[in-house]
Amino acid sequence: MTPQRPEPAGLTRRGLFLGGAAGLGAAAAVGIDRALSSPAGEAEHGSAVEPFYGTHQSGIATRPQAFASFYSFDLLPDVDRDGLRKLMVILTDDAARLTQGRPALADSEPELALIPARLTITFGFGPGFVRRADADAVPAWLAPLPAFTIDDLDPAWNDGDLLIQVAADDPVTVSHAARMLLKDTGSFATLRWLQTGFRRAAGSKPANATMRNLFGQLDGTVNPEPGTAEFDSVVWSDEGWLSGGTSLVLRRIRMDLETWDQLDRPGREQSIGRTQDTGAPLTGGEEHDEPDFEAVNAVGFPIIADYAHIRRARSDNPEEKIFRRPYNYDDAPPSSTVSNAGQIFASFQARVDRQYLPLQKRLDELDLLNEWTVPIGSAVFAIPPGCSEGGFIGDTLLA
Amino acid sequence: MTPQRPEPAGLTRRGLFLGGAAGLGAAAAVGIDRALSSPAGEAEHGSAVEPFYGTHQSGIATRPQAFASFYSFDLLPDVDRDGLRKLMVILTDDAARLTQGRPALADSEPELALIPARLTITFGFGPGFVRRADADAVPAWLAPLPAFTIDDLDPAWNDGDLLIQVAADDPVTVSHAARMLLKDTGSFATLRWLQTGFRRAAGSKPANATMRNLFGQLDGTVNPEPGTAEFDSVVWSDEGWLSGGTSLVLRRIRMDLETWDQLDRPGREQSIGRTQDTGAPLTGGEEHDEPDFEAVNAVGFPIIADYAHIRRARSDNPEEKIFRRPYNYDDAPPSSTVSNAGQIFASFQARVDRQYLPLQKRLDELDLLNEWTVPIGSAVFAIPPGCSEGGFIGDTLLA
Repeated sequence: MTPQRPEPAGLTRRGLFLGGAAGLGAAAAVGIDRALSSPAGEAEHGSAVEPFYGTHQSGIATRPQAFASFYSFDLLPDVDRDGLRKLMVILTDDAARLTQGRPALADSEPELALIPARLTITFGFGPGFVRRADADAVPAWLAPLPAFTIDDLDPAWNDGDLLIQVAADDPVTVSHAARMLLKDTGSFATLRWLQTGFRRAAGSKPANATMRNLFGQLDGTVNPEPGTAEFDSVVWSDEGWLSGGTSLVLRRIRMDLETWDQLDRPGREQSIGRTQDTGAPLTGGEEHDEPDFEAVNAVGFPIIADYAHIRRARSDNPEEKIFRRPYNYDDAPPSSTVSNAGQIFASFQARVDRQYLPLQKRLDELDLLNEWTVPIGSAVFAIPPGCSEGGFIGDTLLA
Repeated sequence: MTPQRPEPAGLTRRGLFLGGAAGLGAAAAVGIDRALSSPAGEAEHGSAVEPFYGTHQSGIATRPQAFASFYSFDLLPDVDRDGLRKLMVILTDDAARLTQGRPALADSEPELALIPARLTITFGFGPGFVRRADADAVPAWLAPLPAFTIDDLDPAWNDGDLLIQVAADDPVTVSHAARMLLKDTGSFATLRWLQTGFRRAAGSKPANATMRNLFGQLDGTVNPEPGTAEFDSVVWSDEGWLSGGTSLVLRRIRMDLETWDQLDRPGREQSIGRTQDTGAPLTGGEEHDEPDFEAVNAVGFPIIADYAHIRRARSDNPEEKIFRRPYNYDDAPPSSTVSNAGQIFASFQARVDRQYLPLQKRLDELDLLNEWTVPIGSAVFAIPPGCSEGGFIGDTLLA
């Protein structure tokens, strides 16, 4: 078992990258040349790629892929600003390669990297990360959310210094990319939590149809549409180092399918204010038609009730909008129950304090859906802007 | 929130089914009519269906779907032969509907049932199930496997009375179907374990390409091909009530990606006896070419080493063949490690004792791959034949 030719496996990714261009180039060449000769190179829609470099990070305006895993890390105590820069240089290089269907440096399973399947890798910084980078650069809203009365938070699902969202239309692609990223993060941080989510598979429904959550509801009907001026103003920040970036509120929301199933269909529809089948407002029309919040029934009560989710989520303040990019989760249930399912609620907005918070406060006060949903995890991250070739994610904060 | 029209939600599936045809028909009609008007009805490859009725159960010869979840149950103490029959009648009805893209009876989220995405639902009986049905009907091989020296079994992943394999190309479809099945199983059995696995997404690689496991190896090159005489003789039983059925050995095999990554590429290739990129035998050619086990290198040593996996797995006895239909798993790692990944090894064969066991004994004695793999769970099930319309899965044992 003596090695017969030079190979990237066995070398560390960090050593290669930081050790100089010679080793780096050789290793990459070996990995890629061998990999491209693989039969897996004949992929079908697996070869679709999303851009990596750009004004904004991918994975936000990107049409949601079928799978997303969210990794939150705690930085090791001895990682200083210089360490943060090294970490982000390495992770940026990983992401720039993997998202384009190329193996990471010293990728030990380069063949698994050849099916990008629209892979995006998106980085977020928690309060601890930004503070360590520059104590004056922490946005006022970058902190744990205030406690809501509906919350039943488990610290195991809360917070973190660094977030990596890995999303693709193929679960093997997500698994392989995440492994490369985790290996490279290991010298700088420890994994705090991991949440794995899914939506409909690519191609199994029309690409632009609204997703259904595990309550069977169409979920995201009023989301701003990427590519519109509304989306840009809702999502992208124009503040300092975060300009071109955004914020992410990630909430793990347990959905109680057992009690939800005891509710009849009219009850379900009244709780949300929409029909379950088409997603149209209860006041009629189709999914994307405007609800008529003034309409009343024969005995004078509002057709869309005061406690209905869509009424409570609506604001007259045009600033109070968010962009949701949620995923379902469905984990192994504890033995006494049938389900352990819910939603990884992910919302992007330029400012948590002006957009997400007032909306969530209204829902916390009154929203019939609260009967069947419980937030069990919560985290807030600043999502830095994208970078150009030669730069790295976070360079507006760390360079 | 008074119900405004009759609805299936809130009724129990069991009550409906066993309670008579009137309630049953009404509930199904409401569910389906409303559901078919949904925008999700415009599915793309999500509308592909696999047959449910037939000589054999689907989900065995079926081209492997991207996702499979394996549910193992312990029967409640008071479930007798009559109870087993009721259970299988109900579960058969669920499976016959859901696999064809129709909601289950009293399906509380009928819209989620409309994308079958090649859903198959496959049932298996453990020793306890068959014994309770008919103590004389238990095949001699239907028992926990003998202990192997490589095993490090965790009872949490072992055995069970009833197995349900739920597989589809869409993870939401798997989640919804499993929920319907779990609800209906709840009066008869408790969940013992759940294993969730994945392969490449549908359409992300050529459909007939061999899958890669998380070691990056092509895995399943010598598998018998469904539709051939070899497959039929390897897989289908001709014994009594199991005729047209088969057996399933399900092993949870942890793959130690950390130590595997420390191995160089030649070392990896010698452990298996194939190249990592094309899967060709180390003696040359392409993936499906025959290895030359006699070939030696310049200094006279075998090119495919004595300890190589493909040499150890090979037998001169044509009976010692199995059909593998494995899935990857990649769960949240314990905090001190980077990965918690491996393979849900699923092999189908007419007889465990004549086919699987001798092969596994050879691998247990010597197989270099054992260095990086540890079986941590093990279960054996009898897989009954398929059924025809009006029948139910297990009717050759229970009718």
